[in-house]
Amino acid sequence: MAALGIDDAALQEAAKRHLWMHFTRMSSYAEHEVPIMVRGEGPWVYDSRGKKYLDGLSGLFVVNAGHGRQELAEAAQRQAGTLAYFPLWSYAHPNAIELSERLASLTPGDLNRVFFTTGGGEAVESAWKLARQYFRAIGQPGRYKILSRNIAYHGTTMGALSITGLPDIKAQFEPLVPGSVRVQNTNFYRAPEHGDDVEAFGQWAADDIETRIEMEGPDSVAAVILEPVQNSGGCFPPPPGYFQRVREICDRHGVLLVSDEVICAFGRLGSWFGAERYGYVPDMITCAKGLTSGYSPLGALLVSDRLMEPFLTGTSYFSHGFTFGGHPVSTAVALANLDVFEKEDLIGNVSRRAADFRKVLDGLRDLPIVGDVRGDGYFYGIEMVKDKDTKETFDDDESERLLRGFLSPALFEAGLVCRADDRGDPVIQLAPPLVCEQEHFDLIGDVLRSVLTEAWNRL
Amino acid sequence: MAALGIDDAALQEAAKRHLWMHFTRMSSYAEHEVPIMVRGEGPWVYDSRGKKYLDGLSGLFVVNAGHGRQELAEAAQRQAGTLAYFPLWSYAHPNAIELSERLASLTPGDLNRVFFTTGGGEAVESAWKLARQYFRAIGQPGRYKILSRNIAYHGTTMGALSITGLPDIKAQFEPLVPGSVRVQNTNFYRAPEHGDDVEAFGQWAADDIETRIEMEGPDSVAAVILEPVQNSGGCFPPPPGYFQRVREICDRHGVLLVSDEVICAFGRLGSWFGAERYGYVPDMITCAKGLTSGYSPLGALLVSDRLMEPFLTGTSYFSHGFTFGGHPVSTAVALANLDVFEKEDLIGNVSRRAADFRKVLDGLRDLPIVGDVRGDGYFYGIEMVKDKDTKETFDDDESERLLRGFLSPALFEAGLVCRADDRGDPVIQLAPPLVCEQEHFDLIGDVLRSVLTEAWNRL
Repeated sequence: MAALGIDDAALQEAAKRHLWMHFTRMSSYAEHEVPIMVRGEGPWVYDSRGKKYLDGLSGLFVVNAGHGRQELAEAAQRQAGTLAYFPLWSYAHPNAIELSERLASLTPGDLNRVFFTTGGGEAVESAWKLARQYFRAIGQPGRYKILSRNIAYHGTTMGALSITGLPDIKAQFEPLVPGSVRVQNTNFYRAPEHGDDVEAFGQWAADDIETRIEMEGPDSVAAVILEPVQNSGGCFPPPPGYFQRVREICDRHGVLLVSDEVICAFGRLGSWFGAERYGYVPDMITCAKGLTSGYSPLGALLVSDRLMEPFLTGTSYFSHGFTFGGHPVSTAVALANLDVFEKEDLIGNVSRRAADFRKVLDGLRDLPIVGDVRGDGYFYGIEMVKDKDTKETFDDDESERLLRGFLSPALFEAGLVCRADDRGDPVIQLAPPLVCEQEHFDLIGDVLRSVLTEAWNRL
Repeated sequence: MAALGIDDAALQEAAKRHLWMHFTRMSSYAEHEVPIMVRGEGPWVYDSRGKKYLDGLSGLFVVNAGHGRQELAEAAQRQAGTLAYFPLWSYAHPNAIELSERLASLTPGDLNRVFFTTGGGEAVESAWKLARQYFRAIGQPGRYKILSRNIAYHGTTMGALSITGLPDIKAQFEPLVPGSVRVQNTNFYRAPEHGDDVEAFGQWAADDIETRIEMEGPDSVAAVILEPVQNSGGCFPPPPGYFQRVREICDRHGVLLVSDEVICAFGRLGSWFGAERYGYVPDMITCAKGLTSGYSPLGALLVSDRLMEPFLTGTSYFSHGFTFGGHPVSTAVALANLDVFEKEDLIGNVSRRAADFRKVLDGLRDLPIVGDVRGDGYFYGIEMVKDKDTKETFDDDESERLLRGFLSPALFEAGLVCRADDRGDPVIQLAPPLVCEQEHFDLIGDVLRSVLTEAWNRL
């Protein structure tokens, strides 16, 4: 028996016999224990043995308001005991309505229409589906394609997976949905051109979108989907002027701009939405995760009035929906979560402290393995290299030994939850809860310095 | 101000301005009010004006244990206050482990592995993705197609939508995922052959699966996905021997059998799983809805040990996951929900009373508009016809006037939540909470008799 009266040995055995973990090599647990998390408080989580960790990833870019919020638990209970479930199919319930109004008040431009989902992938699916049906409705049925960036992750259901720019997680599942096209991302650290001028690089990356639209034929392209800061690959922020150029290009070719803010919304960048942070107005925003701080599953597609117009008259309707989309309990939790954001000014906390966090991480640049530190708000990636001068990266074997063999277990052992990821070049990803302060930044910095130093010595 | 202190007028206005409802003609609410549901208790729900309805559809085939269960609300609160969120990506938490073990103990055969999702559509996506990756892993990379039945609904994300057999809800979103093929369903009421012999009809319908497998080339087919009782079209139960024949055909051609039990599991048919009810062992089961009785979003893919084998060694892994899949709160609620099922023997209640429910519905067969009553357990469809002798159905205009113009509002007005649906031939769908008893069956029967009589008179 361990913390909370949990029989850890029995859980270990049951986990290995029955639980298929996500994106996980199950063979890792043939000889090692499954890490079982049991409790959280603010930025801290505790495992089944009572060991404490700083949650440097907010679960999975999710728990923006921090763990253990009793007011969110109570909001869930109140709603579940009153009306736990009713669908948004031909019916409505007060929380979904109230939340739709509140979200509309926070969005940029005229993004006043809210289509709820259960999570981020479903929001992305909904965006592509809406773009396809919208163009059919306005007499441009040839527009069905979507452009997204190289190495960008947008979800795992087959539509969202088609949009995802990571060939390795798609290869096992081909053929996927036709009409998904890749464009350049904004990885300035490895800029193939304009490596000395971030604005010129940004224009070059944006112009690649126009090139691909023209190559595909503008009349076949429905939408471009971009994260404000791209997560996969390790936090690629947009160069100054990038989104302004993208907006121009989209307008010129009649293509919709979707801002995929599943990670970047709700304070992650020190703003309600990333679009606001970087000064652009998309046609749609996808969001999820931080919307409830993960206390209950919820996602949303936020849509401009213009896009809903063809669906407001006659027998026309968006032939789409999800049983659990806009769940009464999830929307109740989202409202309580937004109350916490406002009461504690979590977004202000991020914008005030982001520079301090960044300073701690920039302080690691003296380490020989640290090639780049990039990101914004409470959202950073640290790219690791073999040679800082040449930016030479690790080969597959080295990356395997470095990330899975050493870094992931060592960081966890040292009490830091974060993510060592090599879907692009090898990076460590950080996205702590928005309640974090200097002491937490310092702890992150100390653990990283110690573990990255050891990693370098072992290479 | 109305019931619960809700300002109904303000909600109406906000709903119309901001909430994009699912599978809903928004134009319906240009002149009418949006029905806003606010409270539930057992099989009853109440709208924002305090009006009471019998929930004859369990929300959307979801609230199997009934509304207002305080023990489920408390389970949600306890977990949300302790650890509301942590991912199953490289980590685990006690509830997901315990629930995976408990589900494995309930499944038929060796379906001992549990991959959690957020809902049913994601479970279907996961089944197709797993089938594709499994066959690549065992050296049969050509097997990527999936067969499903005409008029069957399997979800709305692009993979699940591709599998769905309803052309009308797909047309706006083509092109979809290649490799999805239709087969005959088991609509015996409109059997094109063997209309006088249900067993022969069942063999004919099953044999169509073999015909399509052979036409596609068996080495290109990964899986067949079937609901135990098909929902869309209005409850098509399997003829005796149907699933046994399907199992033989799948085995003969090395094709996986997926039982899509998003609706049929957790007591809907008077059994834990529909596969158990009809005596077959699939290779995978998809489930959701009743798993938590909808108190929190959750779905699962239940998988045979054999299918997981290639993923247990070396660097191999199922490259798939969902942020909110197997959510700590949702799995806590599922465990509490299964406790309710056991403590109150809800499944026994269904198997003991299903014949009484059926008797009430069969009693409507004297009405000239009632062409067929079919289903099982607490899950029925009533097909409406213009002529009982010829089985002539309604044309599109009549169906529009009958269903949307009259039946849907009239049934709701009469205090019954159910669904008048014409995705196939026009039917009324019924799936009340599993706590229902004779008084509820009688109320359903009385409302239907009155409204269907009026509908006939208006034709």
